[in-house]
Amino acid sequence: MFIKNTWYVAAWAHEITEAAPFSRTLLGKPVVMWRNADGSITALPDRCPHRGAPLSQGRIEQGQLRCMYHGMLFNSDGACTHIPGQSRMPPGADLQRFPVVERNKWVWIWMGDPELADPSLIPDTFWLDSPDWRYRPDYMHYQVNYLLISDNLLDFSHLAFVHEKTLGGSAAYAEVRSEIDKLPNGLHIERWHMDSTPAPFVTNLVGWTHNVDRWNIYDFVMPGILLMDSGSARAGTGARQGNRSEAVEFRSAQALTPETEHSSHYFFSQAHNFSLDDASVTDNLHAGLLAGFKEDWEMLHAQARVLDLDPDFKMMPLGVDTALGYFRALVNKNLAAERKLSAAA
Amino acid sequence: MFIKNTWYVAAWAHEITEAAPFSRTLLGKPVVMWRNADGSITALPDRCPHRGAPLSQGRIEQGQLRCMYHGMLFNSDGACTHIPGQSRMPPGADLQRFPVVERNKWVWIWMGDPELADPSLIPDTFWLDSPDWRYRPDYMHYQVNYLLISDNLLDFSHLAFVHEKTLGGSAAYAEVRSEIDKLPNGLHIERWHMDSTPAPFVTNLVGWTHNVDRWNIYDFVMPGILLMDSGSARAGTGARQGNRSEAVEFRSAQALTPETEHSSHYFFSQAHNFSLDDASVTDNLHAGLLAGFKEDWEMLHAQARVLDLDPDFKMMPLGVDTALGYFRALVNKNLAAERKLSAAA
Amino acid sequence: MFIKNTWYVAAWAHEITEAAPFSRTLLGKPVVMWRNADGSITALPDRCPHRGAPLSQGRIEQGQLRCMYHGMLFNSDGACTHIPGQSRMPPGADLQRFPVVERNKWVWIWMGDPELADPSLIPDTFWLDSPDWRYRPDYMHYQVNYLLISDNLLDFSHLAFVHEKTLGGSAAYAEVRSEIDKLPNGLHIERWHMDSTPAPFVTNLVGWTHNVDRWNIYDFVMPGILLMDSGSARAGTGARQGNRSEAVEFRSAQALTPETEHSSHYFFSQAHNFSLDDASVTDNLHAGLLAGFKEDWEMLHAQARVLDLDPDFKMMPLGVDTALGYFRALVNKNLAAERKLSAAA
Repeated sequence: MFIKNTWYVAAWAHEITEAAPFSRTLLGKPVVMWRNADGSITALPDRCPHRGAPLSQGRIEQGQLRCMYHGMLFNSDGACTHIPGQSRMPPGADLQRFPVVERNKWVWIWMGDPELADPSLIPDTFWLDSPDWRYRPDYMHYQVNYLLISDNLLDFSHLAFVHEKTLGGSAAYAEVRSEIDKLPNGLHIERWHMDSTPAPFVTNLVGWTHNVDRWNIYDFVMPGILLMDSGSARAGTGARQGNRSEAVEFRSAQALTPETEHSSHYFFSQAHNFSLDDASVTDNLHAGLLAGFKEDWEMLHAQARVLDLDPDFKMMPLGVDTALGYFRALVNKNLAAERKLSAAA
Repeated sequence: MFIKNTWYVAAWAHEITEAAPFSRTLLGKPVVMWRNADGSITALPDRCPHRGAPLSQGRIEQGQLRCMYHGMLFNSDGACTHIPGQSRMPPGADLQRFPVVERNKWVWIWMGDPELADPSLIPDTFWLDSPDWRYRPDYMHYQVNYLLISDNLLDFSHLAFVHEKTLGGSAAYAEVRSEIDKLPNGLHIERWHMDSTPAPFVTNLVGWTHNVDRWNIYDFVMPGILLMDSGSARAGTGARQGNRSEAVEFRSAQALTPETEHSSHYFFSQAHNFSLDDASVTDNLHAGLLAGFKEDWEMLHAQARVLDLDPDFKMMPLGVDTALGYFRALVNKNLAAERKLSAAA
Repeated sequence: MFIKNTWYVAAWAHEITEAAPFSRTLLGKPVVMWRNADGSITALPDRCPHRGAPLSQGRIEQGQLRCMYHGMLFNSDGACTHIPGQSRMPPGADLQRFPVVERNKWVWIWMGDPELADPSLIPDTFWLDSPDWRYRPDYMHYQVNYLLISDNLLDFSHLAFVHEKTLGGSAAYAEVRSEIDKLPNGLHIERWHMDSTPAPFVTNLVGWTHNVDRWNIYDFVMPGILLMDSGSARAGTGARQGNRSEAVEFRSAQALTPETEHSSHYFFSQAHNFSLDDASVTDNLHAGLLAGFKEDWEMLHAQARVLDLDPDFKMMPLGVDTALGYFRALVNKNLAAERKLSAAA
């Protein structure tokens, strides 16, 4: 069960081209995407209505997509325009195009009721397409349900343990309390760790060994989007009061999209706004992020293997689980609302 | 659910020897086969009645098969002739031998009621054992239900797309209408493509670039046997009227046998009746066929992955589906008849 | 379904260290083990009560185990001693320690009611820790239910077939009748093969080609422990009457522990009491054993694949199955008693 009436990230913009169809399974449904001559993106079910062949095995012919099993041709609106060997278009030959919005390098898709697909609901990720920020876009595939990943992202106390030698650092980081505010569609979380040792990736990046005031300030919103302002400043220079003149700042955009009940897509990036002309800084920052995210990957797959052994296991809420508990409740509330809506329809 | 009272191809004749037992799972049942001194073939369940060990892990001892777990010995009729450590033969120790007929290099097996196993029901594949034809026997394993493969073989319009660069060629091939006649146990299909570019494999084989009149004339019969006369003649030389003096002719024998609900055996060959002394022609023809069959293999596995995502998906019949629709109905009719028969028994 | 109130082998002693936690899934439950400063072993569920992360991904901190997901800390009794970010210990934070006994190089664990964990029930394997015997400890992982392996160990007639060229030898070995005595928790089996060719591994080990009197005398007890005195003596020198002066003697300890319903742990060893200073004898004996055990592994996995094809298949008891039939009945009796006990509770 997935929430349908919400915007999901389907791809990085550069993944979708005019040359060849691109396939990704989203919310259990195969989706094929390609770019039209006007730059817009078409997303259709990646399943020929005829016999279920994946259209992504097909080819683009002058902006239309040809199924390469028996040759049905679909235009950029999903309408079937040719069936070899017959002139009549039978009912059911057209495919329904998914609403898609490309914004700031992410391709957003709406898998629910197209009537409700309001682009103004898409979260702002301006730094993904700004000359003031640099980053390397990336992607990981998880063989776990996406909620295990959102749990992970909603409690940064794990940085002190999972990421001790990468993104985290001192165990004291785990003792810090976050401030958590509810948003209509998620949470706002602020976590300050004052006068702490710098995270290993910061030391790697800018050479700092002196203590820092360190922050992670982020929104985590439906269906699983993390938008974060983070950074570190020389301890005591007033970063918390707004002075970032002695700070390194980052902007992170991370998006979870379920592939199936047991697998997930994870789109991520971490941007910097200094040394913009030095590609090695971008690379170094990305390498540090990736090292940490591989640690998450290992931990979450290990966790999933344990959970699979006993479906009756009940997790035990701790103080650190306030945010993720709230988010899971929000997910369930949305799922219940959609069930009610579809039962009424 | 598989049709049982019909002849299935179990193996190529050369696969079954006197030296060692050969195992293949057919219709969900493991079967062990070996060749007797008189040249006949014994086929038994590949499962020792004692503890279920596969007899095919055993060895042939003077024409009998020894289970190499605890030593039960079975003769060529399936009768148990020795149990180590005991002299009494308990009821249930004998195995039931499956009717087998070796004909024209194929080993046919009857998995249903032995009383009904009439060898005259076996389709004629004379060219598999004729000095007038040459071919290389081959086999592929599919991880899909056999009906997806029979669908594929019952609609050659896919040649224009799946096999554009191998067995097919021009997209116009897909616009041709087949003539379809119902047979009591299958279909007879005739497909003529007049004045067309030659298929790539024909150009490869005999160097033709001129246009051809091209035919595929075949029976497709229960349980999944394709018997085809195909070829190409210089366009306008009257092949359709019977003059094949300027033609290259082929005979194809292809057989599907379910392994399980989700996997299938595919035995195939394509024979030629010219340049019989030139092995490179046989090899070239086979290589072209295999290139095409690998394209089918890719497409059908991709199709099966899409179908697996949504068991509720209903295929949409097109004009090209007449033959396969009829064949699937015939399969269902046979299955229903066998269910009725076994309910009555 | 597994018997819980019995001692299982969880590990070889050398597998459990102070340095790092060790994980093994036993009876479907992940278990983490480590060695304490006093040499004792702690075994806990390998699942953090918080969110189910495997504790074995964690680290030992001064004798306590830290979960490296969010930092919960557990002492050697399983009590939670620290939760980052909160001072209150919520109910349910403690883990229940499994009773563990280390004896003669094997680590025994009790997965059932701790009140019933009586160390005196542990079978005697003195030769695993005696200066009079030498062996190499070993382990194999099986992807089959443990009962298929205990079936195998309860009927040595298979040596003549599965192990013809390793542990077995002449087919006549399979004709020998074992003497079987029931024990309260298993069976006592005696098998003598008089005046037989020696087993290939014995010829390899000591060069004998003359005939021997050969014995396998063993207890096979709950839950799946084989304790064997075996050997060969020059034929006619009175070994059966107690004279082992012209014999080579072995002691074998083998233990089965279910991992899941479909996989098993197999701990094994074969010790010798001669040429104690010659490590090549120990290695040679072990290599011979391992060659045979790989043959079992192949046969049992092949058997499991056949059994998986048809869950309705019923095995056919033969004379050789007396012991394994009795043992399976004993297993079922124990399972029924535990079900009754747990229903009453």
